[in-house]
Amino acid sequence: MINELTIVGTGRVAHHLVKAFSENGVCITQVLGRDLSAAKTLAESVNSRGINKVSQLKHTDLIILAVSDDAISSLAIKFPESIPVVHTSGNTPILERLNTAKTGVFYPLQTFTLNTAVNWSEIPICLESNDDTFLKELFHLAEKISRKVKLINSNQRKKLHLAAVITCNFTNHLLALSEDYLNDNNLSIDLLKPLIYQTLDNLEQLNLKDKQTGPALREDYGTIANHLDLLEKHPDTKDLYLALSNHIIKYHHGQ
Amino acid sequence: MINELTIVGTGRVAHHLVKAFSENGVCITQVLGRDLSAAKTLAESVNSRGINKVSQLKHTDLIILAVSDDAISSLAIKFPESIPVVHTSGNTPILERLNTAKTGVFYPLQTFTLNTAVNWSEIPICLESNDDTFLKELFHLAEKISRKVKLINSNQRKKLHLAAVITCNFTNHLLALSEDYLNDNNLSIDLLKPLIYQTLDNLEQLNLKDKQTGPALREDYGTIANHLDLLEKHPDTKDLYLALSNHIIKYHHGQ
Repeated sequence: MINELTIVGTGRVAHHLVKAFSENGVCITQVLGRDLSAAKTLAESVNSRGINKVSQLKHTDLIILAVSDDAISSLAIKFPESIPVVHTSGNTPILERLNTAKTGVFYPLQTFTLNTAVNWSEIPICLESNDDTFLKELFHLAEKISRKVKLINSNQRKKLHLAAVITCNFTNHLLALSEDYLNDNNLSIDLLKPLIYQTLDNLEQLNLKDKQTGPALREDYGTIANHLDLLEKHPDTKDLYLALSNHIIKYHHGQ
Repeated sequence: MINELTIVGTGRVAHHLVKAFSENGVCITQVLGRDLSAAKTLAESVNSRGINKVSQLKHTDLIILAVSDDAISSLAIKFPESIPVVHTSGNTPILERLNTAKTGVFYPLQTFTLNTAVNWSEIPICLESNDDTFLKELFHLAEKISRKVKLINSNQRKKLHLAAVITCNFTNHLLALSEDYLNDNNLSIDLLKPLIYQTLDNLEQLNLKDKQTGPALREDYGTIANHLDLLEKHPDTKDLYLALSNHIIKYHHGQ
C-alpha cells in the first residue's frame, strides 16, 4: 500500500501533483528539491517537510520524480533500491533499476502552467511498471485523483507525447502568434473565439481530416500569396505559413 | 429596407447563410447557382426559387455573393447597378462598382462544414460598405442572425482572415495529423482531449505566449531529437515538426 509519498521537484508538474494528492487525501510527507527554499515552500503548502538532500530522506512508500527529463536517471540511482521510484515524463522510458527494485511511470497527460487550475478527474494518467503488484498500487493511487487511469507502455507513451506536443504546444504557439499579430494591428483575438471553439467542437466528431477548410485545402494560391504579402515584415512566420500550407496541400492532394 | 434577398452560390457558406436567414425570418426569394439542380435544392429548402442564369433574376433588395474569391468580381459586374451587392469573403476587398451603386462586405468569421450546426448568434459578422445608409441596413440585417456585428474595413478584414487561417485551418490540420498518427498506432485522440481543452481554456486568460510549454520552449533538444526519430517514416511531418519547433525557439529565445 502506498500511504505516504515523496515528491521530488518543485516545478509546475510537482506543484500540481502535490495539490491534487493533498486535496484527495493522499499524504505527502516530503518534498525534495535542489532549491531548499522552493522545496520548503511547496512542502509547507501541504504541511509536509521540505528537504534538498537525498541523505535527509526518511521512510517513504513511493518517490515520484517530477523533474526534467534529463535529470531523471541520474537522480533515480541515488535512492535506495528498497523504495519504489516512478517518474512523470511522457518521453522517458521506464527507469532501469535492479530487478528487485520497483519502478514505473506516472505520466499525467496534461499541460501544466502555474496559477492555472486543471480538472484532475479528467486527466488521463498513463501508468507503467516492472512489477504487477506495484502496478496495482499505482493504479489505486492514480484513481484517487483521476477517473481516467490507463496502462500505457513506454513505446505507446512516447507516441502519445509526440502527439501531445503537436496538438497542444504547436497549437498554442499558433494561437499566440495570431494574438500578437492581431494586437499589433489593433484587433482582438476575441473576434476569432467562435471560430476556434468551432474548430475544437469538430473534435467530438472525429475524422478531423474531413473538417479541413481554408485556402491551402482549396489550393487557392491567390489567397495564399495575399497572406504571404501580409507577413512580409514577419519573415519567420511567413516561412511557417508556407510550410503549413504546403503540408496541407500535400496531405490532402498528395503532390 | 432589405426585405427580400438573393443568395448567389450553393456551397457551404451559402447553405449556412440560407438556413440562418430563414430561421430568423429573413425572406430569401432566390438562390442563383451555376448548377441549377443544386440551386433548386438549396432554394426549395426555404420555399424559394432556384435559378442558374442572371437573366432570370427578378426584383431583389440585396444580392449576397457566397461564392469562391476568384468568382466574385466577374460575377458582380453582371448585376444591374440598381441592386446592392455584397460578398462574404474575408480576403477580398470591397467590390468596385460605379459610385452610385451600393456595395459592401458581409463576412461571417466562422468555419463552415456541411452537416455541422453553428451558433450564428455568436459569430462575428464583419461589415463594410461604400454607403452609410446601406451600411445601416446591412447592420440591421446582420443583427437578425448574430449578436456580434462589427464594422471592419478591407485592410483589417484581410488581417483577420490571415489570423483565422493560422488559428483555425492550421490548428485543425495539426489535430488531424495527430489523430491519424495515433490511429495508425492504435491509440485514440480521446486521450488528448483534456489537454486540448486546457490549451483552449488558456484563450480566456489571453497572453498565450506566456502559456507556452513543451520541449521547444524548454530548448530540450533531446526530446526534440526523439520526436524527429519517431517521425522518420513521415518525412513531411518531420520537417513540419522541426519548422514549428524552430519557430517557437526563435519566438521565445530570439536566436
